[in-house]
Amino acid sequence: MNIAELTTPALLVEADAVTANLADMAAALPGPRCRPHVKAHKTTALAKLQAAHHPGFTVATIREAEGMVAAGLGDDLLLANEVLDARRLGALDARITLAIDSAATLAAAVAGGVREVVVDVNVGLPRCGIAPEKAGVLADAARAAGLTVRGVMGYEGHLMLVADPAEKAKYTEECMAKLLAAHADVGGELISGGGTGTYTANTWVNEIQAGSYALMDTAYTGAGLPFRQALTVLATVISVSEGYAVADVGLKSLGMDHGNPTIPGAQVWFCSDEHTTFAPEEKVAVGDRIRVLPAHIDPTVALHERMHLVSGEEILETWAVDLRGW
Amino acid sequence: MNIAELTTPALLVEADAVTANLADMAAALPGPRCRPHVKAHKTTALAKLQAAHHPGFTVATIREAEGMVAAGLGDDLLLANEVLDARRLGALDARITLAIDSAATLAAAVAGGVREVVVDVNVGLPRCGIAPEKAGVLADAARAAGLTVRGVMGYEGHLMLVADPAEKAKYTEECMAKLLAAHADVGGELISGGGTGTYTANTWVNEIQAGSYALMDTAYTGAGLPFRQALTVLATVISVSEGYAVADVGLKSLGMDHGNPTIPGAQVWFCSDEHTTFAPEEKVAVGDRIRVLPAHIDPTVALHERMHLVSGEEILETWAVDLRGW
Repeated sequence: MNIAELTTPALLVEADAVTANLADMAAALPGPRCRPHVKAHKTTALAKLQAAHHPGFTVATIREAEGMVAAGLGDDLLLANEVLDARRLGALDARITLAIDSAATLAAAVAGGVREVVVDVNVGLPRCGIAPEKAGVLADAARAAGLTVRGVMGYEGHLMLVADPAEKAKYTEECMAKLLAAHADVGGELISGGGTGTYTANTWVNEIQAGSYALMDTAYTGAGLPFRQALTVLATVISVSEGYAVADVGLKSLGMDHGNPTIPGAQVWFCSDEHTTFAPEEKVAVGDRIRVLPAHIDPTVALHERMHLVSGEEILETWAVDLRGW
Repeated sequence: MNIAELTTPALLVEADAVTANLADMAAALPGPRCRPHVKAHKTTALAKLQAAHHPGFTVATIREAEGMVAAGLGDDLLLANEVLDARRLGALDARITLAIDSAATLAAAVAGGVREVVVDVNVGLPRCGIAPEKAGVLADAARAAGLTVRGVMGYEGHLMLVADPAEKAKYTEECMAKLLAAHADVGGELISGGGTGTYTANTWVNEIQAGSYALMDTAYTGAGLPFRQALTVLATVISVSEGYAVADVGLKSLGMDHGNPTIPGAQVWFCSDEHTTFAPEEKVAVGDRIRVLPAHIDPTVALHERMHLVSGEEILETWAVDLRGW
């Protein structure tokens, strides 16, 4: 099938680019040194390609964990987030490790029948995570409650887009010193952290939770990463006026938290629910198909039911985005 | 069922508020004077409540049209957007009226088996729509091709959030003068336009395509509208640190194009994929349930599978958001 036959808007994944991205990451961080984060793509078909390189996965939601298990990818799932009702996790026939950062989330793990946890440590990003000096006490409480504590995790998310490599290395070291201090108190085999933006800078953890590298974002462009933008939104030009044109991709098909999408060879003016108004450098005609680059992949993918793996104009496979929802 | 049993994040619709919103609009614009736009809520269960007041609906996508027909709401659907492949519309056993603004979209309507159209006129918003002075020629071409031309539509979307009523009235009149000039050339019984922001200011059209009024946006707050915010996202506090807390609602459950959500009694710092970090004025605890107000309803709803109609803590009904996708 040719992409010309697709209803637009439609997610396209360039096969060459995603294959190269997966290979590049596997070469840099082989096997368990990368624990791919599926939140970025929410697609078990793509996770299966990553599973050829890496034995474990990171997930952000209970639904993602359930979907991965249903797809046969439940050998070692880390839910790198806190939950207050873990019963659906405890019911899964799979190896599930859950992040905890408080007495309440520890109690939820126990009540839900989860058996393994990591202590989520605040390494500087004001989000989840216990203060490093309190991590050991929480680990002791978890063990006393019968849980296996596999180690620690800490996400230096505020450093992902630091441009200067020396600065990034310095800040990452500072963040990871907190994680290592916590790990000294907590113990366990896992020191988990990082992301696509720090996958080389973070030499302190023993596994990197990278997600964006597979499909990439325009927001990461210029961050000096070897990964290629693999995901675009195929759109149709539905209207042309003097000085601008309109494509049928908009707020319902694009994650907008990083701002407007990019259209090569055009200036994007604004997006509406089902429209993007843009000024093309060269004339476009109603009915033309164009590629729109979302500024943030993760919430973009969450808006789509499927993505199409393509080589040029040819559709090789169609993948369900089967990890959406909660 | 009580909302305490819901998995979060979850969309909640306050029954009192949505009922009042629908009644207020029906009182202001009874029957065919309002043609509710379903893009705002993408939920046929809610559209059925609107159908008690208004005979026709506006849709933005082919999928929305298909879903409305499947729900028995296909008596008079206006697809207020341009499409280049109308075959799925032509296949529907329903009254479908399609917007056209070019020879190519006219040809697509004919090729797809659509029988009725309106001419979409540019009234000032740089998006779809033919120049007013060309509308008559397009209507003649449509009639020559065997189509019924029901009239004109023109959306003054750039005026929705103009705060001053006198300014809004003046600008609306200028925009609608263009639409009326086009209508003089086009003919037909429909003069369609407007939205929630101009539903009283736009006295020039004979039907208003209002969508947001049913559930409302925080972006419309302060625009002097009588409608109440009916939709919130129920979230769970999953982590509490010194000075801030984290709720399990984020970029995957909130439309972000209008900026951060609002949390009453708190300052929102930032959102991540599944998190919102906020500084509460009064202490919150891990496990607390809070209500988050999305800045833009339409793309928020598009991220959710369902919404729950509630009265206080009680869930009255659960509605599928069944018009998502394309």
